[in-house]
Amino acid sequence: MDENNIVVMKFGGTSVGTVEKINNVADRAIKANKEGKNVVITVSAMGDTTDDLIELSAKISEKPSRREMDMLLSTGEQVSSSLVAMAIIEKGSKAVSLTGYQVGILTDDTFSEAKILDVGKERILSEFSNGNIVIVAGFQGITEKGDITTLGRGGSDTTAVALAAALDAKYCEIFSDVDGVFTADPNVIPDARKINKLSYDEMLELASSGAKVLHLRAVEYAKNHGVIIHARSSFNNNEGTWIMDTEGFNDKMEQAVVSGVSYDTNQVKISVFGIPDEPGVAARLFSEFAAAHINVDMIVQNVSEKGKAAISLTIKNEDLDIAKKVIEKMKTTFSIESVQIDTDIAKVSIVGAGMKSHPGVASKMFSCLGENNINIEMISTSPIIISCVLRKDRVKEAVKLLHECFTLEKE
Amino acid sequence: MDENNIVVMKFGGTSVGTVEKINNVADRAIKANKEGKNVVITVSAMGDTTDDLIELSAKISEKPSRREMDMLLSTGEQVSSSLVAMAIIEKGSKAVSLTGYQVGILTDDTFSEAKILDVGKERILSEFSNGNIVIVAGFQGITEKGDITTLGRGGSDTTAVALAAALDAKYCEIFSDVDGVFTADPNVIPDARKINKLSYDEMLELASSGAKVLHLRAVEYAKNHGVIIHARSSFNNNEGTWIMDTEGFNDKMEQAVVSGVSYDTNQVKISVFGIPDEPGVAARLFSEFAAAHINVDMIVQNVSEKGKAAISLTIKNEDLDIAKKVIEKMKTTFSIESVQIDTDIAKVSIVGAGMKSHPGVASKMFSCLGENNINIEMISTSPIIISCVLRKDRVKEAVKLLHECFTLEKE
Repeated sequence: MDENNIVVMKFGGTSVGTVEKINNVADRAIKANKEGKNVVITVSAMGDTTDDLIELSAKISEKPSRREMDMLLSTGEQVSSSLVAMAIIEKGSKAVSLTGYQVGILTDDTFSEAKILDVGKERILSEFSNGNIVIVAGFQGITEKGDITTLGRGGSDTTAVALAAALDAKYCEIFSDVDGVFTADPNVIPDARKINKLSYDEMLELASSGAKVLHLRAVEYAKNHGVIIHARSSFNNNEGTWIMDTEGFNDKMEQAVVSGVSYDTNQVKISVFGIPDEPGVAARLFSEFAAAHINVDMIVQNVSEKGKAAISLTIKNEDLDIAKKVIEKMKTTFSIESVQIDTDIAKVSIVGAGMKSHPGVASKMFSCLGENNINIEMISTSPIIISCVLRKDRVKEAVKLLHECFTLEKE
Repeated sequence: MDENNIVVMKFGGTSVGTVEKINNVADRAIKANKEGKNVVITVSAMGDTTDDLIELSAKISEKPSRREMDMLLSTGEQVSSSLVAMAIIEKGSKAVSLTGYQVGILTDDTFSEAKILDVGKERILSEFSNGNIVIVAGFQGITEKGDITTLGRGGSDTTAVALAAALDAKYCEIFSDVDGVFTADPNVIPDARKINKLSYDEMLELASSGAKVLHLRAVEYAKNHGVIIHARSSFNNNEGTWIMDTEGFNDKMEQAVVSGVSYDTNQVKISVFGIPDEPGVAARLFSEFAAAHINVDMIVQNVSEKGKAAISLTIKNEDLDIAKKVIEKMKTTFSIESVQIDTDIAKVSIVGAGMKSHPGVASKMFSCLGENNINIEMISTSPIIISCVLRKDRVKEAVKLLHECFTLEKE
């Protein structure tokens, strides 16, 4: 077998949720192996396992020790890994499952959100030379001291990409229950089209603006290490979406002006009025937010005629309670006139690597929405994404309009 | 804290089966810790976890890979360990849970029945010096290559005793749902008395002849390493049964002539008639049984007048199918006249370290049974145990009679 012919396949929780699906995963791995590939599989925990364990721990401790949570949750992936290995062996091929520790997935000690520092490849290569398909428990690692860590949301995607990088795999296949990345959410836009190829940057913008196929961290890791990702469905054999360096694209035409439309309803807008318009005040606001681990998404600042500033920003819904506390605290040191919180907003974004060289995309977007009486409340732009905040009850209409305006249903 | 003041506490699956019981385990550990002891807790998997995992694997493979089974099953103890640690932390004390690998419980690579080769103590001692109560996942170890193993039946008891030996602990407390070791099964003999102290040998005989409080392997390990065991209930604070070297007994009077009565209904008798009475034939029979991993318990051999031998032996019920195959195979090479299999038998035993220096114990046992018309079909004796095979439907009556004959209800 060709030592360099390595592929990494990642299957999420729904793809290993039943015995039948586990057998399906085993079949895919065996097929690739019989085609001459050295196969590494990374799996998430089965179906609701992780949620069940979290629920159990919540009965014992309201705020359980993060180290112990990682000890607890990492068992979910260990279970699914061993079951996939059993299924492959039952079908007559050779397989071995490995925990994060056994592979040598070294992380820092930020329990529950650990970062990968290094990935060992010796054990996996030695299992390859014994003819084994290797199943690696996703989502987990080990600190230098030997404590078990987990990688946080989307951790199994990151495990897969990190393994692909360490092993110099041809590509990393991320299997899920959808066919790939679409020009828009197919639940909203029935004629949304599957995108064949995307650059890392486009995927990053899509992932951060609402598309849920791939996790941001995994795409970042792939970009930094040049890992080619193939996002595809575990329920059919259709080609999915390839995510790679744009240099890998054969023709420039592939760089669509607009690749897709995404939206995010999990946002809340906070407007702070009457901030003293002096240097450092806005910085203070955002540094307090950062200290409280609140990710601020969009920011708009205006200066009023009275020499006071108004800042509007958006954050995730789940961060609202902490954000309120931060603002209350700031009120005690700064004279802030008033604060408005608006939970009825949503964000719609258009993403496209070709955008940067095509002027007029933004104005086309604003016209498209304006002509249909959709009011834009905030705007943020970067070279390959334009995002608008609008009323939540109009966001799906906006997605539909933009998909039509930019004729995304056509290749 | 006194570094030598170490205790190991082991809690079985029923003792960590619910959140309430986990909190109870945490309370016990914290209490001992506040009394100035360095505490190690070993836990089994919660309630039915192990059975559930076995059931799940059975749906994937009829005969699952033993390596992968160990990978799968070891998660059960990891879950309960982390939950106990969380409970202790929630109550304001410091705790850390460790897997078999993290402790350094090195085993051979006999997956599913691994033997402990070495137990590391550095990590545990370092956690002590950080003020932590240490919870160790029972039942599991790691091979030199880094593969996860499990220790087989009673594995968590063995983990606890092995830790106590490695750490030179004062004693090892094995908590279960009974108050200790009794003079007879309290379900059969209502006035059975809890035994205060037992020698290792007596406990070994009791464990192998049907008493289920402690596992044979753990007692053997304790005997070999001089670990004092305290078998007690997790539901109250009563003193349980201490198992230790007889040298540790304060007065000879403690060496009761008969300490207890045990029985075992999970036995079947096989009688092989008409075996050629020549050297090596019986040996061949038993070596074939050993090769098939069948443990033979009692053996009786007679030579008939015709120069042919008859051998009766008892084995466990679950080994009967394999035993039949072994005998069928033997029939093809030896002239065996006939084989009788009797599944309606049971074994009753009296155990006592003082027996060896008190003649007449056996005859008292036989008279007791005979006077009550209970027929003895096989007898086996050793310095501290006498066992009799009789009809299964009379075994409880026999236990009752022997308990009375030897006045075991009185101290």
